[in-house]
Formats: sequence, structure tokens, C-alpha cells
Amino acid sequence: MTKGCDSGTARLKSCLSMESHAGLAATPRALPYYVAFSQLLGLIAVATTGAWLGLYRGGIAWQGVLQFNVHPLCMVIGLIFLQGDALLVYRVFRNETKRTTKVLHGLLHVFAFIIALVGLVAVFDYHRKKGYADLYSLHSWCGILAFVLYFVQWLVGFGFFLFPGASFSLRSRYRPQHIFFGATIFLLAVGTALLGLKEALLFKLGTKYSTFEPEGILANTLGLLLAGFGVTVLYILTRADWKRPPQAEEQALSMDFKTLTEGDSPSSQ
Amino acid sequence: MTKGCDSGTARLKSCLSMESHAGLAATPRALPYYVAFSQLLGLIAVATTGAWLGLYRGGIAWQGVLQFNVHPLCMVIGLIFLQGDALLVYRVFRNETKRTTKVLHGLLHVFAFIIALVGLVAVFDYHRKKGYADLYSLHSWCGILAFVLYFVQWLVGFGFFLFPGASFSLRSRYRPQHIFFGATIFLLAVGTALLGLKEALLFKLGTKYSTFEPEGILANTLGLLLAGFGVTVLYILTRADWKRPPQAEEQALSMDFKTLTEGDSPSSQ
Repeated sequence: MTKGCDSGTARLKSCLSMESHAGLAATPRALPYYVAFSQLLGLIAVATTGAWLGLYRGGIAWQGVLQFNVHPLCMVIGLIFLQGDALLVYRVFRNETKRTTKVLHGLLHVFAFIIALVGLVAVFDYHRKKGYADLYSLHSWCGILAFVLYFVQWLVGFGFFLFPGASFSLRSRYRPQHIFFGATIFLLAVGTALLGLKEALLFKLGTKYSTFEPEGILANTLGLLLAGFGVTVLYILTRADWKRPPQAEEQALSMDFKTLTEGDSPSSQ
Repeated sequence: MTKGCDSGTARLKSCLSMESHAGLAATPRALPYYVAFSQLLGLIAVATTGAWLGLYRGGIAWQGVLQFNVHPLCMVIGLIFLQGDALLVYRVFRNETKRTTKVLHGLLHVFAFIIALVGLVAVFDYHRKKGYADLYSLHSWCGILAFVLYFVQWLVGFGFFLFPGASFSLRSRYRPQHIFFGATIFLLAVGTALLGLKEALLFKLGTKYSTFEPEGILANTLGLLLAGFGVTVLYILTRADWKRPPQAEEQALSMDFKTLTEGDSPSSQ
């Protein structure tokens, strides 16, 4: 039997769909296709955001009315595409050390955070210059909630997983919470983007939205692309037999843990 | 050790947080509080929808302009509250036979579907009488997608789990897909409700939305309540150690399966 295939139907199924290579945990056969599909959807969504802003909103600039357009582009690239990809790191990099994968996961989230911050500064600055009110809409409430939770999740995740102080059992207890809240924040970001899209369409098109204007059709399609990217990332993330198998150094730790608890080895993130 | 606590850290943790009662799988200690919290959020969301429609939209009727208001109320009760509760059936009813739980799960989804259908008929009928276009907005695209997927999921779920023809191994293979798509459709329904809320606010309030009108604040709060209900249901649903333990008759089947696969017993839904 392959390494890590000692018991359990989930693991058995996982092992049946794998091919074993000298000491390396093999990648489940369908996983690369799903990952490729998610990237295709994500990149098309980013390109469609650019096309929408370029074709119907006059493009992007930091000065003048075009400053607003920095907001949707940065949020889609940062809080949707890059955040989604950061969640996939543990499924894609299966044979690198846990530490390398963690650092990549953390770094992608840092990039996502910085790009989203630029997007936030753009809209607040634009509102200030125009004298518009801030944080009155459901989009802005959800958005600010997603951004604050994202920052808190990054800090707490850093404290537990990258900072050397946290114990193995503390990490094991926090891990499922980190994964659940990570996925939730990602979905909240996708939902917030759809609300923002809708707001932008209704403010500009008004009742013309109901006449199937090309901009409306394009932006609705963008909404479905963003939702589709979200669903595909979540599918890859939650499929039990696609979870990253424990590496050699983690298995050693698991053995200690097994002795302590008289149970199986804990599942890897 | 309690029944079903033979091995595995997830199960070990689950068993540590349980109290054992004569032959019955005990309920994890925190679960009832989370379920109660989800019901509180769900009921407050339904009540807030009613309050919003009553206070700011003139109430509900099948004739005249008030027919539109049937739509949000029915969708929130059917596709959000009842659909969410149908997902929780397997966590709440832990000691009833699998068949009873399945029938309750299926029936709650039937009620949810019928109420949502009334809500859909209301909005299409209202549009027809007013001469408004149908299915032009992102809200309507997401909504019709959620409703069609919901119907298909119900039919396929019925075929696999309640119709006697499907084999044990076919059910085991389909179960994770059913759970993933069920959760996805539920989240799509929540997202669609937020889009609809936003649409209703922007059409009526327009730029007054930015002056923190009481209706805007109430509807934004409703949006957060709906999102909060969605997150709480998903948390209860996805927490590994809160999964329903297999019952006696399922354990007998699992033993056959174990012999076939030389692995552990399959995890229950």
C-alpha cells in the first residue's frame, strides 16, 4: 500500500485514485484539471473586470473620476483571485515541506491584502474628493467586515502557524477554525464583489438595466464568473480525498501525538 | 469508550466532548447552543424581512403593487430559513433512524421549494401585470440558477437516497457531492437575497440611500443577519466532530463494506 494508506475509506479512496512515486505522495488524477479550471475562471474574471472598466467606465487612473475604477479592479485581483489562490496552496504544493507551503500561503495573502488596501484607499479617497458619504451601503458593510476579518485572520494565523511559540496540539485545535473562517471570508469577499457590481450598474444604468444593455449583460456575466471561481476553489478545498498528505517530518510528529492520544495520526491541513 | 470511538483523533476529540447514554450516541456539548443560535438568527431574519416590508413597503397582498412583497418574504422563508434548517437535520436528529432523518430532510426541502415557488410566481406575475422585463439583473440570474439547481439537487438526491434502487457504494460515492452542492446552493440563495435587497433599496431610495435613511439601515442589518445565518449553518454542517455518528443498522452495513475494502467504516452523512 502507498504511504499514508493504512486505514479509512476516505484515505483508501484517495489512495486508489493516486499513483505512487518513490517516496512522494502522488497527486490525485483529477486535481490538476480542477486547479487549471479554477485558474482559467479566475483569470477570465480579472480580464472581464478590466474589459468592463475599459469599455464602459473610461479606464483607470489615480486622479479624477477614474480613481473609483481602481477599487473594483484591485478588489477582484486581491481579495478574490489572489485570496482564492492562497487557499489552494496546500492542494497544489503537495510535496514541498510544510514550512515552504506555509510561507507561500502567508505571502500570497500579504500580496492580496496590499492590493486590496490600495483598492480601499482608492474608493475612500474618491469619496472624500467628491464629498460622498462612506459606509452607508450593504456592499460597504460587507466589504469592511470582510477586510477587517481578513486582517485578523492573517494575524491570528501568523501567530499560530508561523510564529514558533504555538504548540503542536494548539495548532491542531486551531487549524479547522482557520480553514472554516478562511473559506468564509473568501466567500464573503465574492458576495461583496457581486453587491458592488450590482450597485455600480444600478447607479449608472438605472431603469436602462432592464433593457438588456450590453454593459449590464457583461457585468452580470462577470458576477457569474466570480461566483464560479468561488465555487471551484471551495470544491477543491473541501474535497476530503484531495487534502494534502502529511510529509515525513509531520508523520514523525504525528507518531508522538498518536502515542499521546492512542488514536490515529491527525489529518494534515 | 463510547460507541464509535474506536480510533482517529477527530473521533477521539468528538468522544471527549460527549457524554455517553445507554446505547445512544451523545450530542456534542456545544452543538445545541450553535443550533439554537442559528435558529435565533434565522427567525430574527424572517421577522426583520416582515418588519421591513410592513414598515417601509406597505405590507403584503396578492393583488396590486403589494404582490411584489410576497417575493422577498417567501424566498427568505423558503430558500434561506427552511433550506438552512433542512441542511441541519442530520446534525440535530442524531438518534433517529437514518430513514426518518432522510424523510424529514426531504420534506423540509419540499416545503422550502413550494414556498419559494410561490415567491417566484409572485414576482413573475407582478412583472407581467406591470409590463416589466424579466431576468435582466444579476439578482435574477443568480436566483434562477439557484432555484433550478435546487430542484435538480432534490431530484438527484431523491433518486440516490430515498428511491430504493441505488446501491450502498453508489450512495457513498454521491454523498460528498450532494453535501457540497447542497451547501453551495444554500450559499447562492443567501447571496442572491443580498443582491435582491440591494436592488430593492437602490430602486426606491436612489441617492437617498447614502443619507443613512432608516430603511437603508434596517435592510443592511437584514443583509448581515441573512449572511450570519448562512455562516452559522455552514459552521454546524462542516465541523468534523459534529457529524452524525452511524446508527446500529448502518454500522452493520459498514461492517460489510469494511470487509470489502479492508478499511474503516465509512463516515456517516
